[in-house]
Amino acid sequence: MSDFNFKIEKKIPGKLGRAGIIHTSHGDIETPAFVTVGTKATVKALTPEMVNSLGAQVVLSNTYHLYLQPGDELVKKAGGLHKFMNWSGPMMTDSGGFQVFSLGAAFGEGGVSKFTKEGTQKIEDEEKIAKLAKIDEDGVTFKSCIDGSEHRFTPERSMQIQHNLGADIIFAFDECTSPMADYDYQKQAMERTHRWAKRSLDEHKKLLQNNAQFPRNLVSGKDEPRGLASWSPALFGITQGGRHKDLREESARVIGALDFDGFGIGGSFNKEDMGTAVGWVSAILPEDKPRHLLGIGEPTDIIEGIKNGADTFDCVTPTRMARNGTLMVKDGRLNIFNAQYREDFSPIEDGCGCYTCQNYTKAYLAHLFRAKEMLAGTLASIHNLYFLINFTKKIRQDILDGKEF
Amino acid sequence: MSDFNFKIEKKIPGKLGRAGIIHTSHGDIETPAFVTVGTKATVKALTPEMVNSLGAQVVLSNTYHLYLQPGDELVKKAGGLHKFMNWSGPMMTDSGGFQVFSLGAAFGEGGVSKFTKEGTQKIEDEEKIAKLAKIDEDGVTFKSCIDGSEHRFTPERSMQIQHNLGADIIFAFDECTSPMADYDYQKQAMERTHRWAKRSLDEHKKLLQNNAQFPRNLVSGKDEPRGLASWSPALFGITQGGRHKDLREESARVIGALDFDGFGIGGSFNKEDMGTAVGWVSAILPEDKPRHLLGIGEPTDIIEGIKNGADTFDCVTPTRMARNGTLMVKDGRLNIFNAQYREDFSPIEDGCGCYTCQNYTKAYLAHLFRAKEMLAGTLASIHNLYFLINFTKKIRQDILDGKEF
Repeated sequence: MSDFNFKIEKKIPGKLGRAGIIHTSHGDIETPAFVTVGTKATVKALTPEMVNSLGAQVVLSNTYHLYLQPGDELVKKAGGLHKFMNWSGPMMTDSGGFQVFSLGAAFGEGGVSKFTKEGTQKIEDEEKIAKLAKIDEDGVTFKSCIDGSEHRFTPERSMQIQHNLGADIIFAFDECTSPMADYDYQKQAMERTHRWAKRSLDEHKKLLQNNAQFPRNLVSGKDEPRGLASWSPALFGITQGGRHKDLREESARVIGALDFDGFGIGGSFNKEDMGTAVGWVSAILPEDKPRHLLGIGEPTDIIEGIKNGADTFDCVTPTRMARNGTLMVKDGRLNIFNAQYREDFSPIEDGCGCYTCQNYTKAYLAHLFRAKEMLAGTLASIHNLYFLINFTKKIRQDILDGKEF
Repeated sequence: MSDFNFKIEKKIPGKLGRAGIIHTSHGDIETPAFVTVGTKATVKALTPEMVNSLGAQVVLSNTYHLYLQPGDELVKKAGGLHKFMNWSGPMMTDSGGFQVFSLGAAFGEGGVSKFTKEGTQKIEDEEKIAKLAKIDEDGVTFKSCIDGSEHRFTPERSMQIQHNLGADIIFAFDECTSPMADYDYQKQAMERTHRWAKRSLDEHKKLLQNNAQFPRNLVSGKDEPRGLASWSPALFGITQGGRHKDLREESARVIGALDFDGFGIGGSFNKEDMGTAVGWVSAILPEDKPRHLLGIGEPTDIIEGIKNGADTFDCVTPTRMARNGTLMVKDGRLNIFNAQYREDFSPIEDGCGCYTCQNYTKAYLAHLFRAKEMLAGTLASIHNLYFLINFTKKIRQDILDGKEF
């Protein structure tokens, strides 16, 4: 039914990692690949042509944000995400789970806790609790980060919304727990995620069967139905389990046995745990289906992820850092606001092939950032995305070339 | 010495207007032309490639802003404005006069007044006066809009700064009075502007003679001297005189008799006065030199300006409006925040050839503006600039085609 498939080209000898090709209705993704994030149906500060020309193969948008604004029904009327945002390559949408929980709170049997950058914090204040997300067996009730209005996601709603958005790869609705949550809560949340995975899969199959064709293309005025023949999304199931080996393996067994097209590996990791945990999961998941490591984008983490069997990665870090003036270079990072760059007439990194490094100096970028010019974020985002995408492409080439890892 | 020249191709029968070509060291400007403003060495929200592809021929940067940040000496070290900002076409810089006065105050014999959007306001508060610009016969002392530090511009300094910036067309230092100033003050300011024009011209000639070659190109590492042979800016004198016919004509006679390469027509105008005042001036200025109407950019004003002899126009309005969600269309303007556009899947204007209208709907723009996404300003700026540049190009074609005005 779907023309989605995954082909392994070459494996890393003695490791779980591999190079492959994910085929979607909107083109191929050569893996390992870094997936560019376009949260609200736009890669921040860039046109789709820029995104394409810096080497990006695939864009991931966020279900939570697009559901709230402009609304998934509107995106459907527009002809789907690709047409709405003018991106013709492969697209992913996440399940909305991460945002519901990270912008809200995990409110289950394990207690009430709010997720912050610093980790999970127990919430005592009744008033604060009332503002946050509430989980029950059926789904999650949460308040909009835009206007505080109350909304509800269930596995079925997430599938319906993602079908309206129309990406090529969509994700099952999961509960994304904090790495700080205790073992008992992780286990309960994981088991609920497994039940939600089955409900996501059932709803997805139902939607595929009943898939109402996309309405008339209102942009071109032409009748361009997007039915099952031309578009049917692939559904990835998400494995959870925190940092616990037994839970991670159980989740990989349960989710891996379901009829998903691929898999997401969810949850936050500590740097030292990440590769190991991905390895536990990849060893159990079916080898012939692609694995997406959710929310990971540090170069060192990408290497660890690839060695341990992850095929694709997404992260807002490179573009968020870029807009703050932090630029990725081989030796790490540089802060363009440092005084030394004001009169530095060399590119961000010598030898970098990105548009920014080919045409502009650090001195110019330092000026744009100080002057708060919009072009600053654009040029810096181009550099950081190019850096990370090509960093990942280089590893892919190394795998194909049979280099040692 | 300079390879700057202006050729008239065709005149509007019975009127002062004409179509022509301004030749500069960085290429030709087919006139009448709208000049895109790139205040701080960047056209806000756009890459130079976007600016070029929407049809812009020439970019005007601001001497006042670039002097304060990043500094004209730094731009000189970078190899000049073109190289610094990656724009290879013709460039202009203004004299800094307008910003000094509009961001400061006219502080002359006519009294102390602050310029605001609403017009000139008399200032009584001693403390406020201390913060503003002070004019004397030699020049203007003013405080930085960035950090309040004190600076001084004279006609000589303005020339030195503009030579450091390295545009193709630069402007004499003038006093830009408010249209609200009384006749006596307008006359005094105009006469001072005439004395400053001669001093600007003298300093410009001295700089051309002694022109230290631009230093080694630090970007490419190559030795690329930009001496008199390859680059020598054209200097435009600025006529003033407010709304008074006798002053406007006297200014045109005095400035027009000086050895400038072209002319700026300065000062704010009321809509109804503008065409008439430009006509007074154009009738006297040498016919064989180009005339730039400073700070004018409304479509109706451009038509009036062209009929009355102006060749080029610059204005921040189209890009500033764009960033606020106001889009230019044949019938006037539309505000993309209006509720009706949320589900409008048609382009900003049917038949518009701009990148934005070719690829995006009003619904998508409405979403981007509501989501405060940077791409909103980019797409809207592309449309408004394309609109105004092509509006002006159409008039040029009408002149060449011998159409009636």
